[in-house]
This record gives sequence, C-alpha cells and structure tokens, in this order.
Amino acid sequence: MSKARKVVVIGGVAAGPKTASKVGRLDPEAEITLLEKGDFLSYAGCGLPYYVSGDIKEQQELLATPAGTIRDALFFEKVKNIRVLTRSEALAIDRKGKRVRYKNHARGEEVWLDYDALVLAAGATPIVPALPGVARQNVFTLHNIPDAEGVKALVVGGRKPKAVIVGGGLIGVETAEALAARGCQVTLVEMLPQILNLLDWEMAQQVQAHMEGKGVTVLTGTQVTAIEGNGRVEAVLTGQGRLDADLVVMAVGVRPNVGLAHAAGIALGTTGAIRVDQALRTSDPDIYAVGDCTENTHLVTGKPCFVPLGSTANKHGRVAAINICGGNETFPGVLGSMVCKVFDFCAARTGLSESEARQHGYDAVTVLAPGPDRAHYMPAAKLLLMKMVVERGTRRILGLQAAGPGEGAKRNDVAVMAITAGMTVDQLAKADLSYAPPFSPAIDNIINAADVARNKLDGHMKGVTPMQVREKQERGDAFLFLDVRSPAEFQAMRLPGSVNIPLGALRSRLGELDKDQEIIAFCKISLRGYHAALILEAAGFANVKVMDGGVAMWPYEKA
Amino acid sequence: MSKARKVVVIGGVAAGPKTASKVGRLDPEAEITLLEKGDFLSYAGCGLPYYVSGDIKEQQELLATPAGTIRDALFFEKVKNIRVLTRSEALAIDRKGKRVRYKNHARGEEVWLDYDALVLAAGATPIVPALPGVARQNVFTLHNIPDAEGVKALVVGGRKPKAVIVGGGLIGVETAEALAARGCQVTLVEMLPQILNLLDWEMAQQVQAHMEGKGVTVLTGTQVTAIEGNGRVEAVLTGQGRLDADLVVMAVGVRPNVGLAHAAGIALGTTGAIRVDQALRTSDPDIYAVGDCTENTHLVTGKPCFVPLGSTANKHGRVAAINICGGNETFPGVLGSMVCKVFDFCAARTGLSESEARQHGYDAVTVLAPGPDRAHYMPAAKLLLMKMVVERGTRRILGLQAAGPGEGAKRNDVAVMAITAGMTVDQLAKADLSYAPPFSPAIDNIINAADVARNKLDGHMKGVTPMQVREKQERGDAFLFLDVRSPAEFQAMRLPGSVNIPLGALRSRLGELDKDQEIIAFCKISLRGYHAALILEAAGFANVKVMDGGVAMWPYEKA
Repeated sequence: MSKARKVVVIGGVAAGPKTASKVGRLDPEAEITLLEKGDFLSYAGCGLPYYVSGDIKEQQELLATPAGTIRDALFFEKVKNIRVLTRSEALAIDRKGKRVRYKNHARGEEVWLDYDALVLAAGATPIVPALPGVARQNVFTLHNIPDAEGVKALVVGGRKPKAVIVGGGLIGVETAEALAARGCQVTLVEMLPQILNLLDWEMAQQVQAHMEGKGVTVLTGTQVTAIEGNGRVEAVLTGQGRLDADLVVMAVGVRPNVGLAHAAGIALGTTGAIRVDQALRTSDPDIYAVGDCTENTHLVTGKPCFVPLGSTANKHGRVAAINICGGNETFPGVLGSMVCKVFDFCAARTGLSESEARQHGYDAVTVLAPGPDRAHYMPAAKLLLMKMVVERGTRRILGLQAAGPGEGAKRNDVAVMAITAGMTVDQLAKADLSYAPPFSPAIDNIINAADVARNKLDGHMKGVTPMQVREKQERGDAFLFLDVRSPAEFQAMRLPGSVNIPLGALRSRLGELDKDQEIIAFCKISLRGYHAALILEAAGFANVKVMDGGVAMWPYEKA
Repeated sequence: MSKARKVVVIGGVAAGPKTASKVGRLDPEAEITLLEKGDFLSYAGCGLPYYVSGDIKEQQELLATPAGTIRDALFFEKVKNIRVLTRSEALAIDRKGKRVRYKNHARGEEVWLDYDALVLAAGATPIVPALPGVARQNVFTLHNIPDAEGVKALVVGGRKPKAVIVGGGLIGVETAEALAARGCQVTLVEMLPQILNLLDWEMAQQVQAHMEGKGVTVLTGTQVTAIEGNGRVEAVLTGQGRLDADLVVMAVGVRPNVGLAHAAGIALGTTGAIRVDQALRTSDPDIYAVGDCTENTHLVTGKPCFVPLGSTANKHGRVAAINICGGNETFPGVLGSMVCKVFDFCAARTGLSESEARQHGYDAVTVLAPGPDRAHYMPAAKLLLMKMVVERGTRRILGLQAAGPGEGAKRNDVAVMAITAGMTVDQLAKADLSYAPPFSPAIDNIINAADVARNKLDGHMKGVTPMQVREKQERGDAFLFLDVRSPAEFQAMRLPGSVNIPLGALRSRLGELDKDQEIIAFCKISLRGYHAALILEAAGFANVKVMDGGVAMWPYEKA
C-alpha cells in the first residue's frame, strides 16, 4: 500500500476549500487538512453587501451550498473527506522539514503538521489607513461575516445612521447601495478624481451621476484626515470639511496576506502578492498559492497584476489541485474583468482601460458607443454606454467598459472572450451573436462598437472625445459644434455652445456653413453625427469630426 | 470627372437598405437605387410578434429609427442620398446588359435600370403548405406589417379568439406568447416530435413545459390536414382531431426568394438559397446577394446552411457594400445562433446541437448543466438549464443550448465567441468572465459546464443522460437509481424508481449497497450526484454513473 498524499491547505474561504475539495475528488486516498483561523468556512464574502442591504435575509445563506447544506467542518468531513480545523492559525512553514506549525485558538495548543503539498490560500486583508481615530467604534471594514454583522446591527430596525464610506472602489460602491437601501444618508469619499478607478474617467462619471441621482453624496478628490468621536465615531474629517457620521466603512482596498509565505522565504512578486508559475507553484515547488494572496498575469500586457476575485480563486483551486495530484494543468492569467451592480446600473469592464493602455504604451484607438441594449422599439430597451479600446496597429481589442441601465454584463463577457482569443475588431464585428428583439438590437451594441472602431481605423470617421471638445471650448478654439438632432430634441436639452441643424435638413442648408471651418458633429449617440460628417465631407468640407458618444456620453453639464 | 458608380439594390427591408446606406457612406458619388415591391421600408420584421402582443403600441415604431424618424423614401433620399422606389418589383435581370427591369405597381409602368453592381436582397417568404382551406379568411402568416395588422385586428379590444398556430419554430413560439398575452386560447401544432427543432429534444421539452404552464396547448407529432370554415376559418383538422379556431397563424418556416436570381442563371446552393463566396458575390461577380435570400457557411461544419436572421442581414450589407466600393471584405459564416423569449424563459442556442453534431459525424460528448444564473444566495437568482456539446478528440466546443428563466442569452453569446475562436473546453474553463453575485455564480454556469465536460473527457465522471436512464427503466435493467438529495427534497418530489440516501450519510451507509450493482447517482443538478459517485468509486464500487442534469433536467413525469 502506497503512502497517502498529505495535503495541507491554509485558508478556508474560497480558494482553499475549492483546492481541498478537488484534491479529494481526484485522490480519494489523500489526507487533506484545511486550516482556517476564523470560525466560518466557505462564506460568500462577495455577498456581504447584499446581506447588509437585506437582500439576503439570514447569515446562514452566506454559508450554505445551493442545496441548503451549511458548509461546516462536519460537511467537509462527511461529504468531502477533508479534515477541517477552524480557529486554527498557521504560524510558520518549515520548508525543509515540509511541515506547518499552527495554533488552535480554542485549545491554545500549537501543533506541527506534515505535508507533501502545501497550499497557501491565505486571502487578503482590507487596508485600514493609519488615520487618527480609525479605531473608534462603528468604524468597519466589510470583509467577513463579523464585519457584516457589525454594520447590519447599526442599520436594521429602521435606524438610519449617517454613513460615510471611505473609498470608491467596488466594495465602496456596493456598500453605498446597500446602506442607501437601508435608508441611510450615505456619503462616499474617494481620494482619486473619480470613483471606480478601473473605469476611465468619463465612464466613471456616468456611474457617479447615477449614484448621486439615487441620493448618495459622492466626494471625489477628497482625502480623509481623521475620524472623530467620543468612543463611537461622530464625524469624518476630510480635505473638503467635516462629515457627520454614525457609521464608517473603510473600503480603500485589500492587500494580500503574504506574511507567512514571506517569513518562509517564498518569493513575492512585484505586486506584493505571492509569485507563482502557470502551475500555481510558488518559488518552492511543493508549495502552491491560490486565490486572493496570489499574483496573476494580465493576459493583455503579459505583466503581473493583483486582482483578487472569487471567480479566479475557484479557477486557481482547480488548477492547483490537479497539479498536486500529479496532473499538468495551467492557469494562464486574467483580464482584470469586473462587473458591479450600482442601483439600477451595471458597471463592467475587462482588459485595459484607455488610461491603462496608454500607461502600457499602446497606441490606442477608442470608441464611445451608447445605444439601446435591445431592439429600440421594445419597451424594455434600456440605454447601455460602452467604451471600446483597440490597438491601432494590430486592430486587436484591448479592453471594454460598459455602464448604464442596459445589459452590460453580457457585452462585457463577449469582450472577455474576444480579448482572450486575441480577436481583432474585424473578427468581432462578424461574430454570430444571438439576436432577437427582446435581447439585442439587430446590430448588437458590441458589434456596433467594433464597426465604429473599424470606421475610425480605416479613416472613415475622425472622432474627438467629449473631453477634447471641452478642452477646445475652454481654450476658446473656433469651431462649429453641430448638433444634428431634431429641433424637438434640441429644445429639450442641448450641449453648451452647440448649434442645431437637423440631419434631414443638412444637405439643403450646406450653404449656411463655412467650408474651411472646423466642424464637430454629434447627435444623441453620434450615429446621425457620423452621417452628417459624411455629408459634409462629400460636399467638400475639409475639417469635419464626430464627437464620440454624442449627448448620451457628454459627462459635463447640459443646458 | 469619372462616371458615378451605379448600384441597384433589390429589396427594402433589412439587408437591402443596410447595403445601400453603407455604399452611400463609402462612395458619396454613387447613384444608388433601391427597389421595394411593398410599401414599407426597413420595417422591423423581427418585432412583429411584439406588435401583435401589444408590447409595441404603434405601427410606426416598427418603421422608425431610434431617434424616431420614419424610414420612408424621403428619409433615405435626404439623409442617405439613396433613391428609393416603393411598390416597385424587379422582374428580370439582363446580366449581359447589366440592367434590371422593374414594374412600378402604382403607375403600372415597366422600366430598365442600369447597374454597375446589383444587390439581391430579396428576402424570404413564409411557406404556406398546400392544405385544403388554407386560403380561408383569418388564416395568416406573420411576415410583414399587413400580416401583423390582420392578426392584431382580431385580438384587440378584448376579443379573445381561439387561435391555432401551425409550426413550433421561432416565429410560432413567439406568436404563441403574443396571442396568449392578448388572452387568446392558443394551441400550437407541430408536426415534429418537439418544438424548436434547433434545440435537442430534452431542452425543447423544458421550453414546451413552460409554455404549457402558461396555458398554451402544445401538440407535437401532429400533422395538420385541413382548415375548415365557411369563408372564415372555424377549425383546424389534425391527425389528433379537430381544433376549433377563429384565427390561424401558419409558421412552418420560410423559403428564400430566389426566383429572379434563378431565372437569370445565377447559381443556387444546396440549401436552395443563393450561393455566394466570402465576398458575398454570386456566380455573377457584379451581382451580390445579402440577407435572407442568401446561403451561409456554417462555421463549425464548414457546410452550407440557410439561417435567415436580421443580425446576419446587417452584417452582410456592410460586407457587400465595402466590396462594391472596391474594398476587400469577407463574411466568414454563421453559427446558427438563436435566442428566443418564451414567456419568462429565454431559449438560446449556438453551434451544433447534439443531434446535429451526430448527423455530421462528430464524436460528441454532452453535458447537461443546470444551476442558478447568479450567486445562489441572491434572491434574484433564477434557474438556467444548459447543454454543452463538445468534440471528444479535439475537446473543441461544438455547441451550446440554454433554456430557463435564468440569463441564458449571455452564456449563449459567450459560447458564440468560444466557438468562433475554436476554443477547447479547457480554454473556456479559464476565461476571466466578469463576476459579481448579482450577475453570476463565482463559477459561472458556462465555466461549470466546461469543467463538467472536462471531467467527462478526462474519465473522472461517467455520465448517463435522463433519456438513457429512462430506456434502461423501460427495458427493466437492474440498477440502483440513487437520489442523494436530502430527505426533505426527496419527500417533496422524486423521480420514478429512485431510492434516497442523502450525500452526507452515504459514507456511513455504504454497507447497505451492493458493490457489483450498477448505480446511477443524481441530485437536483447532479453536483452532489457526482460527489456520491466519487465516494462510491473510492470505496470500490465498480459500476457507478452520474445522471446528467439531475432532477432539474429530468424531462419525464415526477412523483
């Protein structure tokens, strides 16, 4: 009888249990031990904002399988043949001796565990900035179940505390919605000039405006300097002034838990997370790292990145388990994909934003493509704003962003697949995406975006962004800002400095216009604007451009 | 001054106007004439069921641009510089003389039009079987605006006629929903053993059961033999008996309009539609064919196929226009993608169904993968049933089907991209699809399906389909049909012939089971069923299988 494979997994939330379970399935003889320093196993960390909001009613829903079984130590033992030790914290790794020392906090004892393969699934920890007063009562992070219970206790029962959220990333935005749903007066404070820094500025502006429309106060470019109060938090001091607060959620990001690995001499990557090869082996080939403590490779840039996500954690677990059991499996990397519910908006992105693409030295062509998310004559059609980033030379898609009430997650996942496959906009434009009026326009939003990109790459359309138009206006450049929407649309709402000639009248009114003047045409989404530019160019106008995205994507005030 | 390019387009619904418009944008000098035999241009044919249902209130919404402009002849002339002739039917093509003869039905005159390039966008026509009585009043097809007005007139104002729909394809199913929404008593009659023949039988069963739950009577395997009535239709005679009917919609499919092309000696393909090369040129290089009259290449099989769709028509138009204007553009083909709203279900597919794959000689491995469409703890989570078809040797994805209340269109479009890119299930399983609890489970449904396929391909999971289980039961084969759900789930509903040992108790109750007996394990979705099989195999059970899809995809009666 051969010696059973000893596998020790450190971390019991997502990647750890997944790795342990898959090892158990592949090798029923394996002796698998999972160490979790907390009380809870396999809890749905990503679901915490929806527990705070009340969408999820009971704590145990965060701990149950789809069939309703609680994933406790007994479950792992009976169903998966995994020994789970909760309240058991790994203290040190003896790589030479291939053993891990852990402390059981319930019994106070310290024990050495032998391993053939060790899996680091230690997760990440919320960053708590060293602000004066940050330790006051009712200042939380939202990372685990006790955090969520703490926040929830303050907002249930009709109490509506004034809440300040520090940080406008995913967790900050989701928490803002959750607390607003509880009736709290919510202020979100972000140090950077925009929320959701994974989006480009003009896309983030759209999300911010939506949040503000829902009653959340958003303060960007605002530094928090202290948290005041007498025991409990009473106010948050910022560069923009003092904000009353009964509740503060710190959501400024997470850092990977690498202390144990680092102390054991395991190499970290440039991002600060644990470096792994494609097999998810660390610099010690008997030690794997999976989930939020692990560095990934970005599939567009080929460079290391730190993008902790539950979806990636599960994929990691499978790959590491196969390799532990003698297989040969690889994890190629990630695209930094994200999707976020923001009240009635979906905000999503994948690949590189324009700013990331430029930082990495790409010659990027961008498209702003708003439009209805299904056939425009369907009453359920909703506006979807999209931005596509394309590499000029190769015509490859580098990234996509989607925001709005429309179905953005679908188009984002289509882009994920296109980028993963290294597709050009020309290939994407011909994809046989499924079409019916309740689901998409006949020309799907992402195919339209790809076609607009092709028009630009092929020189048929000279685009300028709303930001470039604004700069020109602020510089006082002379140009005709030509709105070709209908007079009724123009009456209802117009962009500053624009003049109106409806598209249908343009051919007959060409004589009114100066052929040598710079003209920037637009409409609601700049499809008619594009038509107008082509009419003008055909009539000999020399300097005609189209403003990307039209009125729908103008991120400044309207008149 | 060079001679302007003369382009004649025959057909004014979708592909024709798109081609004409794109030619106009690429070549402002071109003289473009569009011939349409009817009155309406660019009408939204795919929207007709939603006009009948009342979702779309006004006829003109089917004719308007997203900005609300009616796409009439004046619109095309003023905005796009295209001469449009309605009620103008092309009669003959003189290929040698490069001219088309058409008749204007308003004025009764016949005219020759010269062309440099001719575009056939003649569309398709509903098939009306030669049944006795098929010409009676209130027997309709649903193909154009007059059709829709005819049907609508019978169902508005609270009249609730008894309606029989002949044909259970996309239009038949959409029309059934539309008429049910009007309060009609609807019977759908389909000659084949299932509705939605683009789906495999067990997927179509799920859709049919949903329709029946909404009050539609579905008669499959039923031939219509005659339509009775005194002037107006009064009944439909079928192989299953007589159905009272005040209204009949014939929806048995469409055939491409190829008469003009055929008469001119232009080659047709094996499907009966007009054969084209990748540039969309017909056998006459000055004549292009686009849209529903055109044959496509299937991207999986490489073989010709006839799949008329508005989405493809628009892509065709762009490709043909670029080539007409001297460019070099190709249309590679289609995947037979479709999506259909069926009451509260989405039904979608792309690539090859299992039956198509087998017809084409593929060694196909299939997966039935039901599951919640977002994190299972989110109250908005809905069940999504998926079937994936994979080629054994290459591990390439051949096709996907999705049905259920859950978000199937998204996963179907992800599959479209995967198949277009020629991806294996191994590649798909690692795609960085965007994840957040309101949008998907941490392991997305399609990634789960890919992982199950990998488990099968790698020999970790021996699956049997519900149909195979049923056959074994009917043959009287001896096997243990092992339901590993909880006792409460088993009490609530069980499959015929099954016995219950909950997964958590299985390890301790192994002694009750015969190691040499064939065991087929399952649960609600067969994830626990898979666990059970692994436990049994590890314990030395020799003949253990898992029933794909579990209770969720059992297409027969339950107890």
